[in-house]
Amino acid sequence: MLDATLSRIDNEMEQNLKRLFDFLKIKSISTDPNFKKDCAEAADWLVQDLRSFGVMAQKYETGGHPIVQGCLGPNTGLHVLFYGHYDVQPVDPLELWDRNPFEPVIEELSSGPVIRGRGSSDDKGQLMTFVEACRAWVAQNGVLPFKVTFFFEGEEESGSPSLIPFMKKHKNEISSDIVLICDTGLFESRVPSIVTRLRGILKEEITISGPDKDLHSGMYGGISTNPAKVLANVLSALHDNDNAVAIPNFYDGVPELTENIEDQWRSLNFNHNQFLGEVGLSAPAGELGRSPLEMLWSRPTCEINGIKSGYINEGFKTVLPSQATAKISFRLVGNQDPVKIRKSFRNMVQNLLPADCRVSFEEHEASKASQMDTSAPEFEIAREAISQEWEIEAAFIGCGGSIPIAGYFQQITGVDPMLIGFAKDDDQIHSPNEKYDLESFQKGIRAWVRVINSFAGLQNV
Amino acid sequence: MLDATLSRIDNEMEQNLKRLFDFLKIKSISTDPNFKKDCAEAADWLVQDLRSFGVMAQKYETGGHPIVQGCLGPNTGLHVLFYGHYDVQPVDPLELWDRNPFEPVIEELSSGPVIRGRGSSDDKGQLMTFVEACRAWVAQNGVLPFKVTFFFEGEEESGSPSLIPFMKKHKNEISSDIVLICDTGLFESRVPSIVTRLRGILKEEITISGPDKDLHSGMYGGISTNPAKVLANVLSALHDNDNAVAIPNFYDGVPELTENIEDQWRSLNFNHNQFLGEVGLSAPAGELGRSPLEMLWSRPTCEINGIKSGYINEGFKTVLPSQATAKISFRLVGNQDPVKIRKSFRNMVQNLLPADCRVSFEEHEASKASQMDTSAPEFEIAREAISQEWEIEAAFIGCGGSIPIAGYFQQITGVDPMLIGFAKDDDQIHSPNEKYDLESFQKGIRAWVRVINSFAGLQNV
Repeated sequence: MLDATLSRIDNEMEQNLKRLFDFLKIKSISTDPNFKKDCAEAADWLVQDLRSFGVMAQKYETGGHPIVQGCLGPNTGLHVLFYGHYDVQPVDPLELWDRNPFEPVIEELSSGPVIRGRGSSDDKGQLMTFVEACRAWVAQNGVLPFKVTFFFEGEEESGSPSLIPFMKKHKNEISSDIVLICDTGLFESRVPSIVTRLRGILKEEITISGPDKDLHSGMYGGISTNPAKVLANVLSALHDNDNAVAIPNFYDGVPELTENIEDQWRSLNFNHNQFLGEVGLSAPAGELGRSPLEMLWSRPTCEINGIKSGYINEGFKTVLPSQATAKISFRLVGNQDPVKIRKSFRNMVQNLLPADCRVSFEEHEASKASQMDTSAPEFEIAREAISQEWEIEAAFIGCGGSIPIAGYFQQITGVDPMLIGFAKDDDQIHSPNEKYDLESFQKGIRAWVRVINSFAGLQNV
Repeated sequence: MLDATLSRIDNEMEQNLKRLFDFLKIKSISTDPNFKKDCAEAADWLVQDLRSFGVMAQKYETGGHPIVQGCLGPNTGLHVLFYGHYDVQPVDPLELWDRNPFEPVIEELSSGPVIRGRGSSDDKGQLMTFVEACRAWVAQNGVLPFKVTFFFEGEEESGSPSLIPFMKKHKNEISSDIVLICDTGLFESRVPSIVTRLRGILKEEITISGPDKDLHSGMYGGISTNPAKVLANVLSALHDNDNAVAIPNFYDGVPELTENIEDQWRSLNFNHNQFLGEVGLSAPAGELGRSPLEMLWSRPTCEINGIKSGYINEGFKTVLPSQATAKISFRLVGNQDPVKIRKSFRNMVQNLLPADCRVSFEEHEASKASQMDTSAPEFEIAREAISQEWEIEAAFIGCGGSIPIAGYFQQITGVDPMLIGFAKDDDQIHSPNEKYDLESFQKGIRAWVRVINSFAGLQNV
């Protein structure tokens, strides 16, 4: 049963890829309102694709982009939910792409073939590993061994504003025994992993205003306040000299690592020189006195994601800008409270303003960090299944990124989700020239078939 | 002779305005290469207009935008050169304009009628005051009383890169007894003035680079250097706590005011509350311990004109930017040396960079400050002529802006130019909704006629 299904996958890679490419061609950028139609098109594509192998799939309208949901398999016994997202990040700066982000191709690299295109890794390619695994299972065996609910959103890259209301409303359908999420990677692009701790996120956008219009820097320079300068002062004050975040009470609720976890992480022998070297860097630039894996998995951050003020086009304009804007995000850990941190941050900014400057804040998403209870039997079963596919002992690891959906499942359905994914560190997600290794795609599908096969034994748990 | 010419101007305002509007409709934005054709069109328009009243005008190609030059009047005796610029500033942010910047109209404000449109004040409207004065003089009297050379460039708003080579090559034609420049304003929008000191300028563009591409702030946040943060630190370090510029040796060559000048400026009773109030500000934000007029006229500045880094569009992108750029300009006074300050600034920035960050500098224009010798008789003659038109005693004042052309004439032809202009403080030059009061235009033309009339007596000086 297992071997035949695995062989079927290998034999049908051409069709698997053709479907993925059709999906990747859809410009489902959720954060930019200009791509609203494309997001709807991606949702429709998923509905059709799921229906093509028997899933009772449907598109649900929300206040934002639609949610796709569908189920397949027996109505009693074990119920497994799989989550993915069909939306993708914006593609700018477009000039840094080697090709059209939405015309996917297979490229042969020295490290092997890759699928190149926006969303190939984050998250369309990963999402399709599970869909293809189910399709192959059904084609080979007629039915799935347990009920599977497919649950796909289109707002993961823009803060998932419609998700919680939807989950609360559809709590009965999405309540399951096991939740699988495929939006993470292999540790060091090599070791199959289940992520059991995720950083939370808090996003803030601040706009500092001074004069009521842009001014001539000759006529007003030296006497008018300059919001660009004030913003620089504010952004500069966010960290202290040891690179720790300087916002009052920011570290409330940040736990130190247990010795056990410290030992586990040490044994992973993380090669931070290689990790940084791949993006042109040489030295960890985070908090003084913290190990590289701590900086990535167990320490909170404050990062500037964008700044805009004054004249930013070609040439020069000697203007005193009337406004200056920054997008700032925080990665949170442990019990850090995003609501309290937002308040403390805003107070700090207010206190740094000189005369004649005002600040406005735009509120974006906020979510706490998540930590999973790995004592549930499915964690160990899944770990063994993916170890078999890679022939490498799989690991429970942390993740620096924020996948708020993990916390939502914990809060709304009470289940600690299992985060299993096959991306590599050099996939360039959120950056130009995103790719997904063909190996990740093929082994990913095969790994899910092994997980489905192993979970079948959980029927009567 | 004088009265008839003044009456003619008043009677022909409709035609004067029609010509100005035709000129204002041309989108001659010199700093943006997309408007190269428009700049050429503005130069052609000027050539045709000058020729229409007998000027031997010609367009000269340069490496950048063309220069227009022409002369009229007797070939012996006094020679007066008039300088203006036909290029205008960019119009962004376009959404803050109440109308198309290149469709000029007369608007009736409570303070009187204004000409609304990009370039209406800076500098097309001002330039045309002198052209119309000469046209009216010739129409009324047949000939000008002395030789006038018209000299118009199209790169004033983008650093005048072609100007010095052109001036050196054409030194014979542009060498004159008197140089008039119309690109300044009335003191407090009220007192006719001759500007006798101008700040110099130094423009720098810096780009700080870190990782070799934009990174995901979850995957790399807390361990990678962030160029946006590094830029904020650099920009924040440019001033000290007293708002003085903190670049080493920046104040070398900055003189203190003489008592005489201090007295003159005190007697102007500058109303800085009103000056700042007009743009929504309440307090001078410059160097501690300096008077408002010092901040504007006799103290150097360092201002941020633009910042760009990371994701700056709608929505949010949790990216660690690979680069961060700022445009910074300095206003210089006295004997400050722009070359030395550029070097000191660049050294300071280099010294502030942490590991894994690099900086590149783009060089823009630089020019020293200028100060005129007002003992030459034409200064007093012109001061009296413009006093008569306004029926207010005209003043010798300073100007915070940089009009490098003034220095170029001093250096190349050895003449201290006379800066006479009719703009008002609320003209919003370089900003959305630029305007020029109809009164400025009409009285400006009339004032030049008075100046021409008075200079006629200088024939044998």
